[in-house]
Amino acid sequence: MSRSPPVLPLAPGSTIGILGGGQLGRMLAQAAARLGFDVAILDPEPDGPAARVSAHAITAAYDDPKGLQALADLADVVTYEFENVPAAAVAQLAALGVPVAPGPAALEAAQDRFVEKSFLNAHGASTVAFAPAASPQEAVGAMEQVGAPALMKTRREGYDGKGQRWVEHAPDAARAFAELGGAPVILEAAAGFRRELSIIAARGRDGSTAVYPLAENHHEGGILRRSIAPARVVAAVAEQAERIAARVLAGLDYVGVIGIELFEMEGGRLLVNEIAPRVHNTGHWTLDGCEVDQFEQHIRAVAGWPLGPTHPTARVEMLNLLGDEAQGWLKFAQEPESRLHLYGKREAKPGRKMGHVNRVKPL
Amino acid sequence: MSRSPPVLPLAPGSTIGILGGGQLGRMLAQAAARLGFDVAILDPEPDGPAARVSAHAITAAYDDPKGLQALADLADVVTYEFENVPAAAVAQLAALGVPVAPGPAALEAAQDRFVEKSFLNAHGASTVAFAPAASPQEAVGAMEQVGAPALMKTRREGYDGKGQRWVEHAPDAARAFAELGGAPVILEAAAGFRRELSIIAARGRDGSTAVYPLAENHHEGGILRRSIAPARVVAAVAEQAERIAARVLAGLDYVGVIGIELFEMEGGRLLVNEIAPRVHNTGHWTLDGCEVDQFEQHIRAVAGWPLGPTHPTARVEMLNLLGDEAQGWLKFAQEPESRLHLYGKREAKPGRKMGHVNRVKPL
Repeated sequence: MSRSPPVLPLAPGSTIGILGGGQLGRMLAQAAARLGFDVAILDPEPDGPAARVSAHAITAAYDDPKGLQALADLADVVTYEFENVPAAAVAQLAALGVPVAPGPAALEAAQDRFVEKSFLNAHGASTVAFAPAASPQEAVGAMEQVGAPALMKTRREGYDGKGQRWVEHAPDAARAFAELGGAPVILEAAAGFRRELSIIAARGRDGSTAVYPLAENHHEGGILRRSIAPARVVAAVAEQAERIAARVLAGLDYVGVIGIELFEMEGGRLLVNEIAPRVHNTGHWTLDGCEVDQFEQHIRAVAGWPLGPTHPTARVEMLNLLGDEAQGWLKFAQEPESRLHLYGKREAKPGRKMGHVNRVKPL
Repeated sequence: MSRSPPVLPLAPGSTIGILGGGQLGRMLAQAAARLGFDVAILDPEPDGPAARVSAHAITAAYDDPKGLQALADLADVVTYEFENVPAAAVAQLAALGVPVAPGPAALEAAQDRFVEKSFLNAHGASTVAFAPAASPQEAVGAMEQVGAPALMKTRREGYDGKGQRWVEHAPDAARAFAELGGAPVILEAAAGFRRELSIIAARGRDGSTAVYPLAENHHEGGILRRSIAPARVVAAVAEQAERIAARVLAGLDYVGVIGIELFEMEGGRLLVNEIAPRVHNTGHWTLDGCEVDQFEQHIRAVAGWPLGPTHPTARVEMLNLLGDEAQGWLKFAQEPESRLHLYGKREAKPGRKMGHVNRVKPL
């Protein structure tokens, strides 16, 4: 049972569906509400961070046809907070007349690291050398191709450093392949980068684009620890990043906000580390450093609204609060320069992203 | 069945109850969620603006003991979005061990215009001349006391210009009294003011206070049309306003954000028009003009957190969107300087506050 596609730009009072109900869904839901939209969350877990700030919550697996039908009954358009949305879910929603943004090309590229890097290189966005492997023997061969040491990652799934490991010597690749579970992998050459940067970019339904200033990012144990934005970069680096963003957005016929992680090499050349077809942890600084933050920008894009301004209004240091660190809320509340954002998660497991603090300074 | 009072400052993950589920409740709920709180709304209407962004919604009359019990079961502290909360409701919640902030003194003063003005004058905050009347004869006598023309207002209820009328000549007061329904009224002398200003102030549970810069306000037909903040005022006026705020906050042993409407007279003297023991329409500019807006400030205060900074980061013109005006959303979305806030109300009755726009300019 299909229906007519929604009239865009989507009028306030319409409902935006979000697949995934964690902190990104929560901040998207809050931005949508500010623009007068209702929000419907679909998530396998009940009572999550996003559900508790949304008008509607559906508890169902992402590929549950009944759950998706319920979402389609409520929502005029659907978006998502994470890139591992099943392709079948997007297809079912589309068949029911509910457009999903960002579209299938973005999901396909983001769900498989080999497809992703192949797409990037094909569109003039450079990456480190890489090679796929589907067996222990192929893994050793791939290592010889990209050179040691290399980073082995499962082609699918994995985030925050999960599903990956460094391999020092080619013969070790066979064991690493087994340790990662025997699923298809890619081997990536060591980047030897100077800094990690990222660019948050957006593309509207009319093809217009907007980019935020670059962020400089620091990871610990594979998890983002802090971002500083706008990053101090020379003009040539900023221009390179904007060119990369433009190519990626156009190449994916993208609608929404995208996060593009970059390696800045000695000499200032940028390589793309990975793309995330969604709002991005390294864009949380925009909540307190821009007039339109990445969450409102994403909602504007998927709703067919014009994109908003992306210039910085402040310099921000974003600090992730992991696990027990969120218990320091009172200290942060006492700091005049700190804006506290807590996600309402019940359980503070080690390494779990419980919130973040934006420390705001004049530009 | 009472319980121990909540431990303050209230930890994230606790639940804040809000009496009233309109736009003020909605923006309070969003601020509370950002700080990691859950929110429970009690409102006689289901599915209102605040309920749709909150974890819990109770549909009940404000004086319904069962509804209040349900709220007490959920909430660690309770606040409200409007000043006509029944005193009995606050008493019941307090008896159940759930503190309500702002407290009874503020509600008592704000619910009766005669009590309010008497309180203000007793605490060194000047008002226009006024006199109460409970009969047509008393109304004529009160007119003779304050001088013609005078503004007749019911002592209780009434907002946005409802429940009041101008009386030109003393003998007309008897008819006006009847037209307002025969309820007790006060007569207020014509203020002859130069400008309408307001100050949004906050007081924490520890007695610390914070004031935002003054706003200059323009009404049409008794309804706020726009505010400009920070208002351009000489230092002596700002200092006067801050002194008034300090006296009012201390006099009421206040906890939370308060809106104080002021008349600026020729020569710069300030008279208090009225006080609203809650977040205030003339403080909506703080959403985009301050680091901590009035909604987060109120939540901080009632949760026993330290107050946040109140200095302006931008100059803002706040424009209320009344009735059909909210249909201009696309135009506002296209203006780079405009931040749109829509309340998710279903029906755009004439004069109804559907949203507001903050037009943001550099200081």
